[in-house]
Order: sequence, then C-alpha cells, then structure tokens
Amino acid sequence: MRVGYYQFQPEFGAPGRNLEKVENALAGADADLIVLPELAFTGYFFEDREELNELAEDVSASRTVQGLTRLCKNNDFYLVAGFAERCRGRVYNTALVIGPSGLLHCYRKLHLFNTEKEYFDPGDTPLKTIAIRGVHVGVMICFDWVFPEAARSLALQGADLLCHPSNLVLAYCQKAMLTRCLENSVYAITANRTGKETRPRGELSFTGQSQIVGPKGETMAISDSGEEAVVVRDIDVSAARKKLFTENNDLFVDRRPEFYDI
Amino acid sequence: MRVGYYQFQPEFGAPGRNLEKVENALAGADADLIVLPELAFTGYFFEDREELNELAEDVSASRTVQGLTRLCKNNDFYLVAGFAERCRGRVYNTALVIGPSGLLHCYRKLHLFNTEKEYFDPGDTPLKTIAIRGVHVGVMICFDWVFPEAARSLALQGADLLCHPSNLVLAYCQKAMLTRCLENSVYAITANRTGKETRPRGELSFTGQSQIVGPKGETMAISDSGEEAVVVRDIDVSAARKKLFTENNDLFVDRRPEFYDI
Repeated sequence: MRVGYYQFQPEFGAPGRNLEKVENALAGADADLIVLPELAFTGYFFEDREELNELAEDVSASRTVQGLTRLCKNNDFYLVAGFAERCRGRVYNTALVIGPSGLLHCYRKLHLFNTEKEYFDPGDTPLKTIAIRGVHVGVMICFDWVFPEAARSLALQGADLLCHPSNLVLAYCQKAMLTRCLENSVYAITANRTGKETRPRGELSFTGQSQIVGPKGETMAISDSGEEAVVVRDIDVSAARKKLFTENNDLFVDRRPEFYDI
Repeated sequence: MRVGYYQFQPEFGAPGRNLEKVENALAGADADLIVLPELAFTGYFFEDREELNELAEDVSASRTVQGLTRLCKNNDFYLVAGFAERCRGRVYNTALVIGPSGLLHCYRKLHLFNTEKEYFDPGDTPLKTIAIRGVHVGVMICFDWVFPEAARSLALQGADLLCHPSNLVLAYCQKAMLTRCLENSVYAITANRTGKETRPRGELSFTGQSQIVGPKGETMAISDSGEEAVVVRDIDVSAARKKLFTENNDLFVDRRPEFYDI
C-alpha cells in the first residue's frame, strides 16, 4: 500500500484554482491513497459565517467532489481531502473520502479550533473507519489530535491508518501524533498546509511539516515548513495490526476499561 | 509548591539498605512532595512469585512504610513511592502516598508490564486523586503511561500533578509524557530508576531520564540516564487548572464524549 500527502498552499476563496492545482500536482502519482490539507479548496480564515457559506458546497452538487472523483478515476487512487461542506442550512469542516467510483464518506470535524466555532457547525458524524484496498482508514481533522479519544476510538474500531487533514498554526501536533501512533500501534498521515492567509480579521501562518508516522511512533517522512510537495511511502499494514508492545503486552487487550472514568 | 523526584539505583532484595539510602538522600530536602521510582525498596526483576512474596510487605506492618512516614514527619514533606505490597494472599505493584501523618493512599498498578504479569496481581484500586497542600495529585505507575485513559481519568477527576514512579527499560515513555501533560494540561513527575539488575532470568538496564513536565508539555527538568539525583522544581498549580488551549478552546469542555467509542 502506497500512501502519502500533498502539502501545498491553497489560495483563499478560489476553489476552482485550488482544484486545478491539486489535479496538476497529483496527475500520475504512484499511490493508492493521498491525503490533502484541511479546507484544501476554500482556504481557512473566514471572515464570518456568511463568507464561509458562500464558499462551502453541498457534496451532491459539488464541482470539487466531481473533479476529485475524476482525478481518482484517472489515476486509480483514493483521496482524503478537507472540504467546506454545506448541508441543510449547516456548514461543516469536513474531510471527504473519495475514490474512483465517487464519494465514500464524509467526516465532520468534532473538535472545532478557536474561531472556527464562530462560523462552522460542530461535527455530527461518527468516528468510523473505511476499508480501502484492504486497509482500514480512520479520518480525523486537525485539532482532533489533542483529544486522545479521537484516535483511540478509530484505532479500537480497527483503523490501521489515520488520515489527518490539517491547517496547523501551532507547533504541538506533529510530536503528539508520534504518541497517537505509538499508543494505538497505527500509521498516521498528517497533511498540513503551508503559507499565510492575510484576511480582514488578521494573519495566520500555517506550519507545514506534514508527516507520515509508523506504528512505533517513528517518523517515516516529514516535509519542511514552507515547501509544496507530494510525498508517498510504502506501508506494511500488518505492522499496524500487531498490537503487541512486549511479548506479554497487547495494547488493546491490556486495557482496563472498568477502571477508566472518561 | 516544590515538587521533584529522587532518581537512584535500588539494590535488589535489600529493602532496609534501600530505605536507608532514601533517608540519607532526602534528609533536609526543601520540597513539599518527592516521587521515588517504582518498586524502590525491593528491586524489580523477580525470579518468580515466591521470591516476590518474600520481599513484599503488608502496609499495616511494614518497616518501609514506618520509615517513610518518619522521613516525611522529620522533613515535613510527602512522598509517592513504588512498593511491593502483599495483601490477603495477593501481591501488587503499588505506589504509596505517604505524609507526615502516615499512609494516605495506595494505588495498585492497573497495567502490568511484560513479566510482571507472572508474579504480580493486576491492580484493583481506582484511579483517584489525593489533595496534598492544595494540589490534587494523581498516581500512575510506569507502563500505565502508554494507555491514555490512565492519565485522562486522573486529569478529568481534577489532578493537577501526575506522580509517576517508574522502572523504565525502553525509550518511549519520556516523550509520550509530554503529550500526556499537553493533552490534559497537567504537570507530571516521572521518577525512573537507574542501573542494571542481573538476575537468574536475565539482565535489565533501566533508562533513568527522570523528568518534570509542565502543562504545555514543556520539560522543566530531566536527569541523565545513569546519575543518582534529587531534583526539585517550583510548580504553579494555577497553570494546570487553566484548560484553555486557545481563547476559544477548553481541553475538557470541548470533549465530545457522545462520539467516543472507548
């Protein structure tokens, strides 16, 4: 299984140009699954709910979903991509799972970060895994990383690989994801964006350093803060299915849920 | 509040000499609370349950508990100390919380590591916090670190400070504890031992690097692998009670337990 990410700088408010950029970057990529950043087509730092609402799309009539499906079909791969989703009067910070036959799953971010609370609705979809070419893929978005319950819930459901579209502005996540992988014995791909957004309410700088991490918490790939890059690695899914930490310790069997108060 | 650890090398099978060593090292220490390693008086790598059973003590008739209480009284501080506990035919890998007035709490390790399963009984005491001089102290032991639910349960009960007696032989824990502190906004003291134990069933090397970590995951102190040292730092408990990660994100209020499946 060849999996990776595309780290780039989306242009604010230009979904068509961002789609074109993704299409150009990923055409011919030798991969089974590629993760894109959070909100990869709209940009991130919305002025208010009205501005977001104008840029968000309904998945059933989305040029972005149509374009990504075509891209998956033409290249025989799958994508996990951040997306501003409008649905029945609500707007979600969503990650799409798309393959050659179309949209497979929408995950709506459960833990909204900072000002996102002002214009996004909180996620209302379960943490669940999707089987892609025999690999169980769990999806979480950006700030979900700080809540150990998100990755844990996905791993206990059998996730082998966490796909993690992000728009990180702080420096904590990358190291914490090493712990998430180690404690759950899973792979993770954090696809972060680069660049700045200068908007009426201020400027945000995104920290890049997208990474692929293995089930012992080992960094298999990490990008620089500012580069745009498609990075792909081979993963051995059987390594994520071994939950043995020592010959006598299974990370899941050894849990003592009757003593947890969470 | 001044808190810290004593990193040292216990001598296997010599509880009297180990107690004396602790008494000498900590006499006059300017601290409110000091954490000692796991199994600080017996040593770690038992041959079998019979050998452990001979070295373990009942807390109600324990020279170690009596000696530590005297030490707390003479120096007006509290201790959290690893201890092999015998109780009604069972033997536990326990952490004692002791103060000037005697034993306050026993926590029995919930997650036994590797060969410990052969000779210890699994812990049967709840994860709970103890108030010491206005600070809420949670206790976990060594391998409990890999299960995010242990630290999380303590933090959600109001722990400001995790006291974490350890006998670590691998290299993963110290960095993971930075994540534990960050995700819960708590302080943590990991008191690890040093040195080797060469025993009939093999040799174990302990990795030292005891550490004090702050609520943003910052390392406030860390010892070398091999040194014996008493290390104490001032902590500001109010920093652990701020659960704000951004001005709009509270690490506990923002949890979505209805979506967690753990």
